[in-house]
Amino acid sequence: MWLQELKKLVIFGVGLIGGSVALALKRAKVAPHIIGVGRSGASLQAALDLGVIDAVETDPAKAIADADMVMIAAPVAQTSDILKAIAPHLGPDTIITDVGSTKSDVIQHAALLGKNAVQFVPGHPIAGAEKSGVGSARADLFDGKNVVLTPTENTNPQALEAVYKLWGSAGARVCEMSASNHDGIFAAVSHLPHLLAFALVDEIASRPNAAQLFDFAAGGFRDFTRIAGSSPEMWRDISLANRESLLSELSAYQAELVKLKTLLENLDGAGLQALFERASLARNEWVSAQKLR
Amino acid sequence: MWLQELKKLVIFGVGLIGGSVALALKRAKVAPHIIGVGRSGASLQAALDLGVIDAVETDPAKAIADADMVMIAAPVAQTSDILKAIAPHLGPDTIITDVGSTKSDVIQHAALLGKNAVQFVPGHPIAGAEKSGVGSARADLFDGKNVVLTPTENTNPQALEAVYKLWGSAGARVCEMSASNHDGIFAAVSHLPHLLAFALVDEIASRPNAAQLFDFAAGGFRDFTRIAGSSPEMWRDISLANRESLLSELSAYQAELVKLKTLLENLDGAGLQALFERASLARNEWVSAQKLR
Repeated sequence: MWLQELKKLVIFGVGLIGGSVALALKRAKVAPHIIGVGRSGASLQAALDLGVIDAVETDPAKAIADADMVMIAAPVAQTSDILKAIAPHLGPDTIITDVGSTKSDVIQHAALLGKNAVQFVPGHPIAGAEKSGVGSARADLFDGKNVVLTPTENTNPQALEAVYKLWGSAGARVCEMSASNHDGIFAAVSHLPHLLAFALVDEIASRPNAAQLFDFAAGGFRDFTRIAGSSPEMWRDISLANRESLLSELSAYQAELVKLKTLLENLDGAGLQALFERASLARNEWVSAQKLR
Repeated sequence: MWLQELKKLVIFGVGLIGGSVALALKRAKVAPHIIGVGRSGASLQAALDLGVIDAVETDPAKAIADADMVMIAAPVAQTSDILKAIAPHLGPDTIITDVGSTKSDVIQHAALLGKNAVQFVPGHPIAGAEKSGVGSARADLFDGKNVVLTPTENTNPQALEAVYKLWGSAGARVCEMSASNHDGIFAAVSHLPHLLAFALVDEIASRPNAAQLFDFAAGGFRDFTRIAGSSPEMWRDISLANRESLLSELSAYQAELVKLKTLLENLDGAGLQALFERASLARNEWVSAQKLR
């Protein structure tokens, strides 16, 4: 499908991500009729008032009639309910995609679509912002950001190509990989750091002298724990959805902590310095590479 | 000692911290003659050219003659050598202080000062910046920041009062506590997070697919690992100096990870959400409290 043929796009959940997709498409002069569907009438009305979407619909069946593409951008815990609700009403050519942070679980849920499952293209834009909600949506949110698509061997190549082009027109760098590879990568570089930050703050907050400890926490603590301010519900869902990869990451990290502790116990200054140097070098090279992108 | 009587201040190590102390005193119209001492002639010359210090001296004995106060702001690994070098030449009323991140070890080193050890006031300004070196020094670096002093029962109260006033005039909130309490607090809120960040980056960098992992790392990873870009030598020294407290913090954190892992293994969504909520609430309350300061 060429994007010119994208006449009707239905977005379930018009928040930061869904709203930014709509704005990015408008910026790219890809101008489908965009219908927002969601649980919160106030949030959809805000999206309509901001000109992010063109219409609001509360009945999923009505919303998706004749839709060229359906994007699920609601909280991931709602994904299977949304798939169930739309499954009986999907046309054979309607493309379905999502924006969830975990992909193996979504592919399992997509079986709910029956014969339309081949039309489902799992996706994950690696973009976020401090604030959520449609009020924070921006046309440039995805510029230069990675979007990972995780098709299966059964995914319709035309559907995949359409979703690929959609994200490209929104300014993203699009790539493909298997869902299990995706989930392993994000367990390491995103899900594990979130859990480690939550764990540190919870551990400190549980102590009798927590107030004094927090009083002396400074800039390093602030940056390290920023992601511990994230949504507990969202991270509960991600943790459960990517449980296997996350458990394996936690084990690898526990082994690294044992290594570090042994260096400390042995007063091994050279070993500690070598570990810190490897980390510092890798981190600084990563920052330089990010700046070149 | 009233600060008006501070006629001659000698700073060993005129980098970010030492240079900012000099600039903050000038801003406060406390105008001692400031002599910089250090290993790097180029760095001292830069401090002189920038007007941060008034004179340079390479011989510690000459530098401290008639000094009212000596501040040790060089890398902490040099502290004991500096104390040894100055010990035989100190006048009975000269006050000595330092700015190191760990305090129990410095108090042990201060025994090198012999009978002048009572004139030593251990200090730790909780301030830093992305960049180091005298070129980054700023008169306002300590404004509203905590400075912890850790006197012993033998510390001369007049010496303590003078260092207290010095930091107050530099804009800091000054407080006192025992060295062991200080080292315990900073092991938890600063030293442990640094080690955890170094450990995560080292663990990821050691994998065969490290390049791919780094390619998909984004904003959460960037903030979480910022402190892993810190100086390996400095963190080797801090780790060894505060080894006991740090080992105890590492054990507490390992126990928290076991708790988290058990919740995941048991698919305990409510337990995960409760842990994330406690952390998220504590983190967000901390940020609000910081803003009020």
